[in-house]
Amino acid sequence: MTTKTDSLEKSSTINEDKLSRRNFFKRTAVYSAGAIAAANVLAPVKLKADDVNIVNQVEWGTKLGDRLDKNLYGLPSPYEHNNIRRIHDLLSSGDRYATVSMSPLHQQEGIITPNGLFFCRSHSGIAQVDPNKYRLMLHGLLEKPLVLTLEQLKRYPSESRIYFIECPANGSTGWRGPQFNNLQFVKGMMSSAEWTGVRLSVILEDLGLKPEAQWMLAEGSDDSEMARSIPIEKVLDDAMIVWGQNGEPLRPEQGYPVRLLVPGWEGNLNVKWLKRLKFDSKPWYSKEETSKYTMLQPSGKAIEYFWPMEVNSIITSPCPEVPWTDLKIGDKVEISGVAWSGRGTIKTVDISLDGGKNWVEAHFKGLILPKSWTRFSYIITWDGNPKVLLSRAIDDSGHIQPSIDKLVSKVGVEGIYHRNPIVGWEVTSKGVVNNVHVRS
Amino acid sequence: MTTKTDSLEKSSTINEDKLSRRNFFKRTAVYSAGAIAAANVLAPVKLKADDVNIVNQVEWGTKLGDRLDKNLYGLPSPYEHNNIRRIHDLLSSGDRYATVSMSPLHQQEGIITPNGLFFCRSHSGIAQVDPNKYRLMLHGLLEKPLVLTLEQLKRYPSESRIYFIECPANGSTGWRGPQFNNLQFVKGMMSSAEWTGVRLSVILEDLGLKPEAQWMLAEGSDDSEMARSIPIEKVLDDAMIVWGQNGEPLRPEQGYPVRLLVPGWEGNLNVKWLKRLKFDSKPWYSKEETSKYTMLQPSGKAIEYFWPMEVNSIITSPCPEVPWTDLKIGDKVEISGVAWSGRGTIKTVDISLDGGKNWVEAHFKGLILPKSWTRFSYIITWDGNPKVLLSRAIDDSGHIQPSIDKLVSKVGVEGIYHRNPIVGWEVTSKGVVNNVHVRS
Repeated sequence: MTTKTDSLEKSSTINEDKLSRRNFFKRTAVYSAGAIAAANVLAPVKLKADDVNIVNQVEWGTKLGDRLDKNLYGLPSPYEHNNIRRIHDLLSSGDRYATVSMSPLHQQEGIITPNGLFFCRSHSGIAQVDPNKYRLMLHGLLEKPLVLTLEQLKRYPSESRIYFIECPANGSTGWRGPQFNNLQFVKGMMSSAEWTGVRLSVILEDLGLKPEAQWMLAEGSDDSEMARSIPIEKVLDDAMIVWGQNGEPLRPEQGYPVRLLVPGWEGNLNVKWLKRLKFDSKPWYSKEETSKYTMLQPSGKAIEYFWPMEVNSIITSPCPEVPWTDLKIGDKVEISGVAWSGRGTIKTVDISLDGGKNWVEAHFKGLILPKSWTRFSYIITWDGNPKVLLSRAIDDSGHIQPSIDKLVSKVGVEGIYHRNPIVGWEVTSKGVVNNVHVRS
Repeated sequence: MTTKTDSLEKSSTINEDKLSRRNFFKRTAVYSAGAIAAANVLAPVKLKADDVNIVNQVEWGTKLGDRLDKNLYGLPSPYEHNNIRRIHDLLSSGDRYATVSMSPLHQQEGIITPNGLFFCRSHSGIAQVDPNKYRLMLHGLLEKPLVLTLEQLKRYPSESRIYFIECPANGSTGWRGPQFNNLQFVKGMMSSAEWTGVRLSVILEDLGLKPEAQWMLAEGSDDSEMARSIPIEKVLDDAMIVWGQNGEPLRPEQGYPVRLLVPGWEGNLNVKWLKRLKFDSKPWYSKEETSKYTMLQPSGKAIEYFWPMEVNSIITSPCPEVPWTDLKIGDKVEISGVAWSGRGTIKTVDISLDGGKNWVEAHFKGLILPKSWTRFSYIITWDGNPKVLLSRAIDDSGHIQPSIDKLVSKVGVEGIYHRNPIVGWEVTSKGVVNNVHVRS
């Protein structure tokens, strides 16, 4: 009964171009086909007459809804007023400018964080930049240095890619012992989005990068003039200048109108409110790579540069905000979470129900992309016995998420960055979920 | 200089689980590698001392930004106040309840529409549903009919998928001749998102679908009690009950807290504010499938059901809102756009610069997913000569987007649904872009 009108439209002329086709453009993306078709996830409930009445007792279909022009840029339901970024005093440097707002990961599924909930780290507040006055300068070791308006920048051919961004301090406050009893403060210094912009390799081909150029300085236009040095190999590999996030212009707190994107590397390298890119043979040792974002070692010396975010994972359901208190014994229930690595693609996630004694492999759900969130799932039958749930990720570079003790034995306890140990949730017999510390 | 701490963590125990691994879970998704590394997209500009002054004249880095807690659920920059959904009187049925708000496609890149800009079609306004009182009834030809709360529904294992939704009337107003001179009203009755929910096949395995069940009725809880009949093959293939959109709960105008998702099929089947799913051996002939959403034929008879959205494409840059008036002769410039098909995956997009006399194949950008937006690109050198730009998509079911004349010869001019002809933009010698009608 479907229309077949355009199936008759097969033209012969279309085939004349075939010789020019490059088949490598034709690879289609695939979703991971996880084993999620588990029956009886809920204990079966027989519909009774009373249940039908419950549906009919709900007041719906009884009055006209809101006008469509009430909100031409939409907002969440008022019932979701608690689904917001949050700031914690322990992490806020005593003010609300040089601090971090953390993403409510417990309400996020999939691999897109909505722009309104994307975590925000700022060194001097959220800069407000007039896009009409915006200029980007590219200079230093270039054949043709350039100053661009926003319109000129957007004339470069764009690409869109899904990548996570994570602060290197994510989870750092809790790995020596449980500090917060919720997912949002334990791991909320990260989010994921589809970014749109131009690859720096495209611009640099245009401008003529001189062979002596080994480093790029990225400088922001915020009050702190946040600046970082980035090695040219990474710049040419996959770094982008981006203006779009999830189908709209960047939000102010994400660097509107333009930020740098350095896929998989620490969040602070993704310089916001981007003002200037300079190319040189040496790094700059800006204040953000001397006073901050170095890693103190047990020896008393500090590692100066350590860029890629480590392989990592966290169970997001259950978590303290999403407990199992409504479960009945015998119910099937999904353990699910997110894994990520700044070094490449997630290969495997293992789950433990007993604090690390035994491990089973989780299934993947959805898209498996490099330097992107990867969702995992494992279904169990709730037996009412207390559990300690852990997840452990492995990426395609061969890195594996370490236990807390193994991490400490390697890097000590002085630093707060790049702490990616296996962390856990205790589930009590009542289904209450708490943050616990499993050392090895 | 990067840390290698966790590269030492390769454990032997991890390999003990290897036998249980199913390799089909390991397929990773790939981005299409389009030929976008075109140099000299901008005419080279030599940096002069004046240009440096331009950068320094911008007032930035001079004052503290906004506090991070100013907006814990974020909003776009005030400078983007025009990037909103819009309603047109010609399409609004005389009110702002039973109408459609159209998405600003000209500012969207990639394959995600932000929730605040996702197009909205409503038959009786935007229903406000209290999630605490929400109930979903599944009944009819089921072994175990069920009434679910929202919490119970979310206990099913979730999946996340990127799909477009399109109103079957999208573009219908303009295909007999240019009616609107902008992209937003020409094609804005569609958007794309990452949806999270549970497949109906999972729930129906749980509830026991009886063999006589050939159809499913989906009924909304809005004032119009929007209801549609859907064949069981599609329900079991890929239909979902969804509660999440782009990482947060559905927005009110998208059916909060729960809607049906029928991937690739007409928008009105994706029933919002979902209240009831009933299974039976025959369709229901609801008012929305008799008075509306039938397709009048030249014979005077109407086709009653025609579900999949046809293969389609549109150039989004340039367009009337994104002209080429800033180009100089000799500049390279990107022609880019979006293609989609409710029948499967986009295989090819061809571009014409001369109103359909000659065609060249475009490159793909980003992810190529079934029933999802697929982005295409083609770079030309601007020569200052007038052009008529067209795009033509082909999907993997073998359907090809028809010319207006070919479409008319098959389906006549009576109906307003499923009109997917090749449509065009005229570019004048000044770079102004207008909607034009190219018949064949």
